[in-house]
Amino acid sequence: MNLRRSDFVPFFEPQGVAVVGSLREPRGEALTVLRNMQRFGFTGQVYPINPSQSEVLGLKVYSKLKDVTEPVDLAMLITPPNAVAGLLEQCAGKGTRAVIVGTEGFAERGEVGGSLQRQLVEVARGRGLRLLGPNTVGLVNTSNGLVTVPYMIGYKTIKKGGIAYASQSGFVGAQGQPLEDRAYPISKMCDFGNKCDINEADLLDYLVHDVETKVIVLHLESVSEGRRFVHALTEAVASKPVLIFKTGRTLDGARASSSHTGSLASTSRVFDVLFKQTGAIRLDTWQEYWEVPKIFALQALPKGNRLGVVTATGGVGVAVVDVAVEHGLSIAPLSDRSLSKLTSLGIHVNRNPVDLGPAMVVNEDPLRLTEEAIRVVLADSNVDLVHVVLPGGVERWATATVKMFEGLKSDMAKPLSVYVYGTRVSIIEAVARQLDSVDVPAYLDMDTSVKALAAMARYAEILSWTEPIRAQAGIQ
Amino acid sequence: MNLRRSDFVPFFEPQGVAVVGSLREPRGEALTVLRNMQRFGFTGQVYPINPSQSEVLGLKVYSKLKDVTEPVDLAMLITPPNAVAGLLEQCAGKGTRAVIVGTEGFAERGEVGGSLQRQLVEVARGRGLRLLGPNTVGLVNTSNGLVTVPYMIGYKTIKKGGIAYASQSGFVGAQGQPLEDRAYPISKMCDFGNKCDINEADLLDYLVHDVETKVIVLHLESVSEGRRFVHALTEAVASKPVLIFKTGRTLDGARASSSHTGSLASTSRVFDVLFKQTGAIRLDTWQEYWEVPKIFALQALPKGNRLGVVTATGGVGVAVVDVAVEHGLSIAPLSDRSLSKLTSLGIHVNRNPVDLGPAMVVNEDPLRLTEEAIRVVLADSNVDLVHVVLPGGVERWATATVKMFEGLKSDMAKPLSVYVYGTRVSIIEAVARQLDSVDVPAYLDMDTSVKALAAMARYAEILSWTEPIRAQAGIQ
Repeated sequence: MNLRRSDFVPFFEPQGVAVVGSLREPRGEALTVLRNMQRFGFTGQVYPINPSQSEVLGLKVYSKLKDVTEPVDLAMLITPPNAVAGLLEQCAGKGTRAVIVGTEGFAERGEVGGSLQRQLVEVARGRGLRLLGPNTVGLVNTSNGLVTVPYMIGYKTIKKGGIAYASQSGFVGAQGQPLEDRAYPISKMCDFGNKCDINEADLLDYLVHDVETKVIVLHLESVSEGRRFVHALTEAVASKPVLIFKTGRTLDGARASSSHTGSLASTSRVFDVLFKQTGAIRLDTWQEYWEVPKIFALQALPKGNRLGVVTATGGVGVAVVDVAVEHGLSIAPLSDRSLSKLTSLGIHVNRNPVDLGPAMVVNEDPLRLTEEAIRVVLADSNVDLVHVVLPGGVERWATATVKMFEGLKSDMAKPLSVYVYGTRVSIIEAVARQLDSVDVPAYLDMDTSVKALAAMARYAEILSWTEPIRAQAGIQ
Repeated sequence: MNLRRSDFVPFFEPQGVAVVGSLREPRGEALTVLRNMQRFGFTGQVYPINPSQSEVLGLKVYSKLKDVTEPVDLAMLITPPNAVAGLLEQCAGKGTRAVIVGTEGFAERGEVGGSLQRQLVEVARGRGLRLLGPNTVGLVNTSNGLVTVPYMIGYKTIKKGGIAYASQSGFVGAQGQPLEDRAYPISKMCDFGNKCDINEADLLDYLVHDVETKVIVLHLESVSEGRRFVHALTEAVASKPVLIFKTGRTLDGARASSSHTGSLASTSRVFDVLFKQTGAIRLDTWQEYWEVPKIFALQALPKGNRLGVVTATGGVGVAVVDVAVEHGLSIAPLSDRSLSKLTSLGIHVNRNPVDLGPAMVVNEDPLRLTEEAIRVVLADSNVDLVHVVLPGGVERWATATVKMFEGLKSDMAKPLSVYVYGTRVSIIEAVARQLDSVDVPAYLDMDTSVKALAAMARYAEILSWTEPIRAQAGIQ
């Protein structure tokens, strides 16, 4: 199973990349791709293709693809729509089998574009090429610095890590998201665009074997090859969590989808069945799409679904319990041992959640108190996962809070997420990012912080009943 | 109907406030209340009561309440639980009829505390006092600078405006939320605490007549007087939108609630009926609790539920349509006139959403294009509300974006909300706050931005069928 059969290999791991399109300052699309590649430190070779220039950004410019003497595994095309088919022929001639068509103006623009798009597919099929797109910002691979986005990106780093994000929208691109500020740990990103050829089933076949990817996250409007997708998804779920955010759920949404990527969106009902049958996990919002996956990248799976809650404010504790129960977690009855330890810390506790509020107000060292309480709940054998509600609004607490969690790390064999609130946005943002950076997933939205834990518990449960599939596929 | 009958009047509009409790540096609760009152510019008189000191923060300290010669309308008590009943007698003696009991350690702590709390109620009933609390951070009134919170607040301004926030949790307090950064336009805030006496029905009776309050927002775990609440709610809804976030929806959540405020939470089903019968609008998360109301404070109600969508990215447009339809909005079929105007702007548009993406990329002035497109959709007679998806990640665009919306203001007779996304958190935060400040409600979460519009359309519909109630109550 270590074979890399997928056609996605040259897309994500090219040695040589040709970029075909405008090199005009300041916004030429090919020029912007080259800038992004340099900025993010792509480790392979890049070959600008353009007949009107001889050098750009210190790189030799080639008139035609065939003028490049070295091998070219991947071509990124961002030319007018009419030029694309001819360029595909050139790619075939050069032996370049993986092509990203960034260009817009195909099936998303009605019948004329649709016919143009079918022509691309014909050429590709005839010449043995695989196409990503058209109408796509393409790919990111944090392990080799590949960034094909043809728009300016307002930052310089994407954190390496275990999340693979794929989407049918350029919204999920480095140019659209605060990836540096949020520091999601990312392995790969893929915008399918109009999905005329290579699709989500191909991507799953690749990512299931990608050692850098720990969790697969898909935004889908439509599915290209239903049967094959279900198969690929089932196999993927057996070894990695797959989270799916489905849009075009409503009839109007599906209509909007067809004018956006030229795909016919699948109905909500088909996906309800899909989630049940494959064990893929449903994400409900863009916010969850971005925020939930990191918990899988940062922490190990729980052994069950029994939640312990430690909160600095009782009112949020109640809301946490609601969201937890509504999403399949159960509220752990803390052991008598834990309850008496908490009482000896001066914490009045009925059962669970553990409401630190009153004790924090009178305690000389509220952070120390918080640490001790979390330690007790983490150690309780009735507890499988822990949720913490923490004020993070006071500057002098920020560093101490992060230190506290570092101190807890040795006890943290169970997944734990933190909802951070407070009186200063900049401070809670900073505290949350620092916690993420020590592998404690932190959230600025309570519901998402709890749903992330629920997703983990759900996946742990799914793994237990996909055991036969794993055995059959020879996956450990 | 301009009579101010409510017992809440002296709570929110006191001329003289006594603060009873510890004046010890650095964290004495009464001391902190005094600091907050001074910081937020309370316009009335404040009288610290404490036998062990003679002056604090430039204020004369009185040994006993009766030593104050001027009238005292409101007393804030933050003393040990056992001292409270005696202080209530002193309040009665002084003629102070409104008392906030900040002190914790009552019904939320089981039977002993419960019995102590019943004792307070007895004294209050016997002596004609009204009590808020116990176990509360009390009140905020932005029109007179009243802030009774006994914890340090990390900022200096709460924006004056039309939202009244009430809650059963101190989480909804100036000390827990980034009210300065987010600049929600607020009239009043109220933490009910354990709700031993004065409750949500009393508050509704007050707020319905409060000219500064345009929208009422309640977080409730329980309801104290069911029948009276339904009556007060029905009457309130007939003149102002009332949004309710219910926690303790699950059995476990209800249990957690009882150990937090000593109240027995109402089940989810009771509230389902309540929402239907009264026309109160349901909020689903804390995030919605904070973010949805501002749209009611900033904009006028729509005439119907037909949504126009203008988006810089097609993928988000599809998701917007889903959320809109799932929450009762319909997707407006744009008029032929609008479609041809958009086409003449170079925008390829099928129907609605209006996807600006492709045209923005090739346009010399993408912001101007956006402005023109929004203008067309706002003017379309098929459209009742408008949703805009806007990139806000580039610094040099921030000011221009705000200017653009100022330019659109004359056309903005219809409600409009904006979802801002982008590559820098600090910039999208700044753009969103600047838009809010010119009365264009902006959101960093897409779902909330659409649900805010849906809430407005829902309330407009409710108003149409509460007409008879309004007529009966003599409300215009």
